[in-house]
Amino acid sequence: MNPKHPEVLGLPCYPSLQAIPGAVDHVIVSIPAELALALLDDCAAKGVKSVHFFTAGFRESGDAERAELESAMLKRARAGGFRIIGPNCVGLFVPKSRLVATTGVSLEPGPVAFISQSGGHAHDLPFHGGQRGLRFSKVVSYGNALDVDESELLQYFCEDPETEIIAAYVEGVRDGRRFMGALREAASRKPVAIYKGGRTEAGKRTAHGHTASLTTSAAVFDALCRQVNAIQVGDMETLADVLVALRFASPLPRGTGVAVVGTGGGPSVLASDEMEQAGLRLPALSAEVQAELRRLLPLAGSIFDNPVDATTLVSPPAISATMRVLGNVPEIDMLVYHLGFHPVSRWGGGLISARGLLEGIIQALMDARQATGKPVLLALRPAPDEGGMKDFCVAQDAFVQAGFPVFHSLGGLGAAMARIAAWNRG
Amino acid sequence: MNPKHPEVLGLPCYPSLQAIPGAVDHVIVSIPAELALALLDDCAAKGVKSVHFFTAGFRESGDAERAELESAMLKRARAGGFRIIGPNCVGLFVPKSRLVATTGVSLEPGPVAFISQSGGHAHDLPFHGGQRGLRFSKVVSYGNALDVDESELLQYFCEDPETEIIAAYVEGVRDGRRFMGALREAASRKPVAIYKGGRTEAGKRTAHGHTASLTTSAAVFDALCRQVNAIQVGDMETLADVLVALRFASPLPRGTGVAVVGTGGGPSVLASDEMEQAGLRLPALSAEVQAELRRLLPLAGSIFDNPVDATTLVSPPAISATMRVLGNVPEIDMLVYHLGFHPVSRWGGGLISARGLLEGIIQALMDARQATGKPVLLALRPAPDEGGMKDFCVAQDAFVQAGFPVFHSLGGLGAAMARIAAWNRG
Repeated sequence: MNPKHPEVLGLPCYPSLQAIPGAVDHVIVSIPAELALALLDDCAAKGVKSVHFFTAGFRESGDAERAELESAMLKRARAGGFRIIGPNCVGLFVPKSRLVATTGVSLEPGPVAFISQSGGHAHDLPFHGGQRGLRFSKVVSYGNALDVDESELLQYFCEDPETEIIAAYVEGVRDGRRFMGALREAASRKPVAIYKGGRTEAGKRTAHGHTASLTTSAAVFDALCRQVNAIQVGDMETLADVLVALRFASPLPRGTGVAVVGTGGGPSVLASDEMEQAGLRLPALSAEVQAELRRLLPLAGSIFDNPVDATTLVSPPAISATMRVLGNVPEIDMLVYHLGFHPVSRWGGGLISARGLLEGIIQALMDARQATGKPVLLALRPAPDEGGMKDFCVAQDAFVQAGFPVFHSLGGLGAAMARIAAWNRG
Repeated sequence: MNPKHPEVLGLPCYPSLQAIPGAVDHVIVSIPAELALALLDDCAAKGVKSVHFFTAGFRESGDAERAELESAMLKRARAGGFRIIGPNCVGLFVPKSRLVATTGVSLEPGPVAFISQSGGHAHDLPFHGGQRGLRFSKVVSYGNALDVDESELLQYFCEDPETEIIAAYVEGVRDGRRFMGALREAASRKPVAIYKGGRTEAGKRTAHGHTASLTTSAAVFDALCRQVNAIQVGDMETLADVLVALRFASPLPRGTGVAVVGTGGGPSVLASDEMEQAGLRLPALSAEVQAELRRLLPLAGSIFDNPVDATTLVSPPAISATMRVLGNVPEIDMLVYHLGFHPVSRWGGGLISARGLLEGIIQALMDARQATGKPVLLALRPAPDEGGMKDFCVAQDAFVQAGFPVFHSLGGLGAAMARIAAWNRG
């Protein structure tokens, strides 16, 4: 709809809402804020059901007149019997309906719903998560939350039969009591992973400038999440990591014992520190288990403990045998295999170019998963350059195809799995 | 040297050390551990100065005989008047002498020395850091530290006229008192950034399996670093970040006040939280400064506070004007510009394809640096795919060429600069 053009990119363009033949369900608005009220009058007359304002420059601008304008818009919506999404947001991404306003995301529907007060995050999570196998039922970017807000969206996805996992990025909470009820109900029925932006003083101020949100205290929010057993994270990477774990780690572990298998002494020391600091345990191996590993792996350049480090741990038989030994240790709840795509420690690169090796490793890890009954998780460290990222993406695609949860660092994996284990114990 | 071949890849190959005509300074060993003593006898007879054992499978294997073998090796070195580097390490990287055992690293010498107990890290830092402009005087991977150890290396680099900045990755300390003295002396004369691997119980166990290190308590190590004003970090990314800051942030800030400029509301909220949690302060802007920004930037979609967020902040005049306004705020000690290379928020991609835009932004930031006298820091967020990383690398190269410190996340930048400010205050 644009009064200046009869046609845009070969599609018919109407001068007004009224001029559109037939019913209109949903209106996406990107006209200047000054024209908002007139448009909403037209929406009421046309009988539309929902209006999404991409348009920004309302309450979040700090301008008093613009805040009043928002209030007037809400009155129009109530009187007109339609709902407003936003303003100041990118609105809906619904793969099943092919309602999409971005590129690079999969249009295959899936079980994850995402509620996001930020439009950038609403785009980034489906893109990043999509590379790791996540597919979405609906993504809603809701900006200033003038009408449809975080509580109502939680209630909706709690009931939505197409949604099995709920993710949320929230800057402010409109009504604390209502939100608490909605979160409690949702978290009791489906896993809910939530990132609350604006935890520090500067973050709160920025959230207010971004979506006019009055953020609640971080301590109160933490306590609420613990009470209702919602999984809380502190950044978008961990949100994606938790979703990948919920979707693909099978079975979901209740314990925090992890065994780490791969190549590289330095990365193994770092992994130990990062994963224990994140809340997982790396149980020490008994003399018997260490002796078993010594039979399987070369003496030189190996660490016969947990993490297990050996140069031969890029060969499928060695991986398979090592994983089975570790999977039999009762204190170990999950098995991790890691690969780097950096130069020198770029085992990943060699694995892509050696014929059949990648497939062999995937088969070895699938066998280990089945033989041990424990979840097998992948940590693939991305490369800092174009060539390395090409190899990385090939490997990631293959592991994701085979149904593995893929993480991008051992520390990130640790942070996600520690939360998953705590959540799973209730 | 190999008894089986007269020639390898067109180069002459000798059957023994004695058969080599002329003097031999340095020997790199990658024969099986069982042959080590016989080789060291030959080294003594030949009058070599230093022997680097790439060979592993000594004390770190946990095998008692192999530990005894190490002790015998040390005796041979003392008697023969030469030094041993390692065993179980990748040894020396000396760009000036073109002594290099890896690929993908720059052979241009520079002011950074790196002491690393891990061979992987000894390769990765010059590669990663190299992309961000770091150049090295000498890198020493020293593995089991049988003879040459961390204390002696610190003493050496403290005196080395080619070294201005010292970086260290240490798993264990051989002699606490000697190390304390060496670190105190080095840190009093040059900036020293140090990552101590093996902080947790699992990390300590892994460090022992990796390089036979008996790690000290993390608390004792922390106290020592504070006392002597060495910059301590907890992972390799932060080590690289601190070195980049030491090398390219000019002037080095003493205060922790930071102003953040860029595009994206979600990233701005995240940046605020991550940077304040890392120890920086994002001072709120006064009404006067906010009014100045309102004159420069569009009302819709902007945040007129710190961080400053506006869609026009990819245009050189807007960047330049905004930076100058912020640079005049006394509580602000450093200026940060951030760019994402993710889809949708992939401003970076557009900037590469628009003719002259990248150069324009660089010029605007150089002007801001000069006009304000405050350090200008870049945060470029890498992309998760091949195409995005291509754009990212082009932009990174251009900013590095122009002498800017480039970081890969706002949280990482925050962690590094908080340490730099504390160190700089002494």
